Amino acid sequence: MEKYGIFELRLKCESEPNVTFTCGDTAINVKGFRVGDGEYAVRFMPQTEGVWKYGGAADGEFTCAANTGGNHGPVIANGTHFRYADGTQYVPMGTTCYAWIHQTPELIAKTLETLASAPFNKIRMCVFPKHMPFNQNDPELYPFDKKTDGSWDVNRPNERFWVHLETNIGKLRDLGIEADLILFHPYDRWGFADFSTEDCLIYLDYCIRRLSAYRNIWWSLANEYDLIPQRKAEDWDAFGEKILSEDPYRHLTSIHHCLAIYPKRDWMTHCSIQSGFVKRMAEWQKEYNLPVMNDEYGYEGNIEYDWGNLSAFEFVHRAWTVITGGGFVTHGETYYREDEALWWAKGGELYGQSPERLAFLKALQYEIGDVEPYSNTFFGNPNEKPNENIEGADAQQQDFARLFVRVMRSLPEFELRSFMTGFSPSIVRNENYRLQYLGRQCPCRLDVKLPENGKYKVEVIDIWEMTRTVALTEVSGTLQVKLPGKEGVAILVTRTSGEAL
Amino acid sequence: MEKYGIFELRLKCESEPNVTFTCGDTAINVKGFRVGDGEYAVRFMPQTEGVWKYGGAADGEFTCAANTGGNHGPVIANGTHFRYADGTQYVPMGTTCYAWIHQTPELIAKTLETLASAPFNKIRMCVFPKHMPFNQNDPELYPFDKKTDGSWDVNRPNERFWVHLETNIGKLRDLGIEADLILFHPYDRWGFADFSTEDCLIYLDYCIRRLSAYRNIWWSLANEYDLIPQRKAEDWDAFGEKILSEDPYRHLTSIHHCLAIYPKRDWMTHCSIQSGFVKRMAEWQKEYNLPVMNDEYGYEGNIEYDWGNLSAFEFVHRAWTVITGGGFVTHGETYYREDEALWWAKGGELYGQSPERLAFLKALQYEIGDVEPYSNTFFGNPNEKPNENIEGADAQQQDFARLFVRVMRSLPEFELRSFMTGFSPSIVRNENYRLQYLGRQCPCRLDVKLPENGKYKVEVIDIWEMTRTVALTEVSGTLQVKLPGKEGVAILVTRTSGEAL
Repeated sequence: MEKYGIFELRLKCESEPNVTFTCGDTAINVKGFRVGDGEYAVRFMPQTEGVWKYGGAADGEFTCAANTGGNHGPVIANGTHFRYADGTQYVPMGTTCYAWIHQTPELIAKTLETLASAPFNKIRMCVFPKHMPFNQNDPELYPFDKKTDGSWDVNRPNERFWVHLETNIGKLRDLGIEADLILFHPYDRWGFADFSTEDCLIYLDYCIRRLSAYRNIWWSLANEYDLIPQRKAEDWDAFGEKILSEDPYRHLTSIHHCLAIYPKRDWMTHCSIQSGFVKRMAEWQKEYNLPVMNDEYGYEGNIEYDWGNLSAFEFVHRAWTVITGGGFVTHGETYYREDEALWWAKGGELYGQSPERLAFLKALQYEIGDVEPYSNTFFGNPNEKPNENIEGADAQQQDFARLFVRVMRSLPEFELRSFMTGFSPSIVRNENYRLQYLGRQCPCRLDVKLPENGKYKVEVIDIWEMTRTVALTEVSGTLQVKLPGKEGVAILVTRTSGEAL
Repeated sequence: MEKYGIFELRLKCESEPNVTFTCGDTAINVKGFRVGDGEYAVRFMPQTEGVWKYGGAADGEFTCAANTGGNHGPVIANGTHFRYADGTQYVPMGTTCYAWIHQTPELIAKTLETLASAPFNKIRMCVFPKHMPFNQNDPELYPFDKKTDGSWDVNRPNERFWVHLETNIGKLRDLGIEADLILFHPYDRWGFADFSTEDCLIYLDYCIRRLSAYRNIWWSLANEYDLIPQRKAEDWDAFGEKILSEDPYRHLTSIHHCLAIYPKRDWMTHCSIQSGFVKRMAEWQKEYNLPVMNDEYGYEGNIEYDWGNLSAFEFVHRAWTVITGGGFVTHGETYYREDEALWWAKGGELYGQSPERLAFLKALQYEIGDVEPYSNTFFGNPNEKPNENIEGADAQQQDFARLFVRVMRSLPEFELRSFMTGFSPSIVRNENYRLQYLGRQCPCRLDVKLPENGKYKVEVIDIWEMTRTVALTEVSGTLQVKLPGKEGVAILVTRTSGEAL
C-alpha cells in the first residue's frame, strides 16, 4: 500500500459504516457506501507514510509506503498555480470528453488509447449522460435505478454504473490524467437536472464516499451552472459546502459557467472559466487570487456552432494568450463526422492540429515553471489603474504615458475596461524566464528590455511551427530582436546569470 | 464651368473681399483670401445649374452647366450611408498617407501614380507635417511664415505651401479621391499644436476660404484630438461650429480620436473612429445615427508598434467585420523599409496584400448598395436589450433563448456589453441582399434561413482568395449550405424574386 493509493475495506453490515483512520496526530473519518446486499465498502487515501490504524465499523491497521513512479498524489492549488501533493510540478493541459464513459466499450477503449499518447493530463467529463447535438444516443448504464413512478431513486445507485465510472477514473489515473468530474449539467433529457436539492445532496454525498479516495478526482460542480434553470442560486453554495465539509482530501473544486462567472467562495479552489475573451485571465487571477483555468474558449473544429469551429491556429493562439495571461487551458475538438463521434463529447480519435502544438506549449511550461503575469505598458495589470510609470521609459515617453493615462481615466468604465483588457500585454515571468506572446501582431523587429546587471538568452518561438530559435545570447540591457513578422510568435528570455527577470 | 467645379475670381483690393453668388432663390456669401501683394482670390463651387450672378467686391455672372464624367459633386452623408451630391452611389474605401504632401516631388508623384491604380476613393492626410517614428524629415514648405520671435504667424500664410496643398487636392479630385483633410494633430515638433485658440480659428477660417470650393474636401478636425494636451475640450466645439457656420457647402466634418470617442455634435456629419474593437460598428451607428467609419483599426505591416503590424489577413478580416457591422473602413500600410518611406505616412508604393482584397470588397459593396446591420441571435443589435425572440426559432430554441437572456440580464454592465458586442453577428442586409461574414469561425456547413415566399441565390465568398461560388439558386426557407471550413468566409444571399430579405 503506497501513499495516495486506495485502501479499501469491504464490510458486511446493516447500514453505511464509518471508519476512522489514524496515523500519528492525524485522524480522518471516512464514510462507507453500499456495494451490494448487506455489503459496504470504505475507501481511504492515506497521505502520510507509516502505520495507519483504523477503528469503528472495522478495526485493523496497514502500513503506508512512499509513493512511487508516476504517483505524486492529488493535484492541489498552490497560490495561483497547481502542484501535486508530493511537491512535484503539475501544469494542467486539459481536454474535454464530456460523455466518453457513456459510449460503447469499443469507443471507450479507443478514447483511452488516444489519451495514452496525447499531451493531456486532465479531462473534463460528466457523471450524467449528455443530450446535445451530436449526442442523441442513450448510454447503456445510468447512475441510479428508478422508482416505480419512473423518477430516479438517488438512494439506489446502480452498482454497475459506478464500477464502470470508477474503473475508467482509475484508468485515467494510471495514464497520469486528472478526472475533472462534472457533477451537474443542463444538457439533460433523462431527468438528472430535475433532481430536488435534497436528492442532489444525497447524490453528492455518494460521489464523495465512493470516489474521493481516487487521487486524480477533481470536483466540477457543474458545466454551465447558470443554464440549469432547475437549480436555485443557493443550491450551488450548498453543494460546494457539502464537498468542503465531507471530502476528507479537499480535492480541487470548481464551478464552470456559461455567461455568469461564479463569485469567489471558500469551497472554490480554482476558477473554471468559459470565455472567448482570452485576454482576461490576469484580470480574473487578480480578482480571485486562485489558479484560473479557461476550460472552454471554443473548440478546434468545423461544426455549425460558434463554440465548435475555431481553426487550429486560432485555438493554439488562444491557448498561448491564456497562458501568457497567467492562466491555464483546456483543449476540445469538434470536427464534424458522419458517425457523430466528436472528441469533445464522445472521445474516440483526435483529428486536429492543435494537440501536438499544445504538447510543445506544455513542455515549455514545464521548463519555465510557475510564472506570473507582468506588464510594462500603459495598460498595466488588468483590475488595476492604468499604469503611468513605464519601466525604462525616457522623459518624453514618460510624458506621453502620463497624457495617455489621463485620457484613459476620463473614459466611461466600459471603455476603460475594454482597453485595459484588450491591450493588456501577454507576458508572464519568474526570476529566470520571461515569456511574451505577440499574438496576431507581426513585427519584424522589437526592442526587448533586459536588466543591465546580468546575462540573458533571447529565443524566438514560432507557436505553429513549434520551433525555438536562439536570437541573442549573453546579452543585457535594451536590445533589438529580429522577428519573422508573422502571427503566432513568442519571445522567451532566459536568465543565464545576474539580476532576476 | 460645370456644376461642382471651382469658379475663381482674382481681385486687386485692400482687404479680404466678400462676394455674394446668387442663382434663383439661392444666395451664397463667399469670403476671399489673400494670394499676393494686394491680390485676393474668391473661390466658389456652384451646386445649381443655370446663370449665377455675383456682386460685392466684384460683379458679373457665369453659366453653370451640368456636371460630367467622374464629377458627381461633394460626398454627403445620407442617413447612415454616404452618396455624392448628384445622387450617385459613393461607398468610401479610404487609405491613409498622413504626410504625403510633405515629401519630395518624386515621392509625391509616385504616391499619385500608386493611387491612380489603387482601389481607394478617400485619403486621410494632414495639413501640418508630422513628427513620429519613420517621420523625422522636415518638409520643404510650411503653411505659415514666422514672426520675428520664431513663432508662426497665422496671418501670413505661405502662398507656395497652399498652392502645393491645393494642387495635390485637385489631383486627388481628378483621380476620384476624397481628401479627408486633417486640420490638427498631436505629432508635432514645429509648434503647430501650440497655436492659441484664436490662431487656430484664424487658420481654420483661411482653410475654409481657400479650400472649401474643392468638392472633394472633407474636414477632419483632428487626428487623435484627445492626445493634443494644448487644446481645451471646448476648442473642438468652437472649431466644429466655425466650420458649420462658415463653410458654404457643409463639407463632411468629423473628429478622430485615440481613446475617447467625441460625443455627438451638430457639426459632425459622420463618425471617424479609431478602434481595434471592430465588432462595435453597429453600436456606434445606433448611438450616433450617422455614417460610421473606422478610420484606424490598425495597419497592415510589420513595424514594432502594435498599431502597425497586422497581417494582411487580419487587416482584411477586420475590414469585413467593420463593413458587415454596418460601418466603413480606411486602409493603412506600414511595412518596414530602410528608406522609411512607409505608405501610411509618406505614400510612395504599396507592398501589401490587402489592397486588391479591399478592391474586391468595395466592388461587392457597390453591387449590393446601402445596407443596415441585422441580427437574429440572442445578442440582438448592440445598444439594445438582449433579444429573446429569435426569428424562426422553434419552441425548444425559444425556451432556451429566454433562459439565456435571463442570465444575460443578471450580468454586470461590463460583462453584458462585452457579450453583446463580442458576439453580435456580422450581418448586413437590404431588401435584395444579405451579407453575413463568419470571421474566424470555420463551419463546414451552416443553416441559412431565407423567407418562405420568394426565390433566392446563395453564394459563398472567400475573402482572401476573392472568389464567389454559387452554392444554391432559386431556393427559399431554411437550407443547409456547405462551407469550406476555413477562416474568412462570407455568405451572400441575393433575392431573385418574392419577399424582401
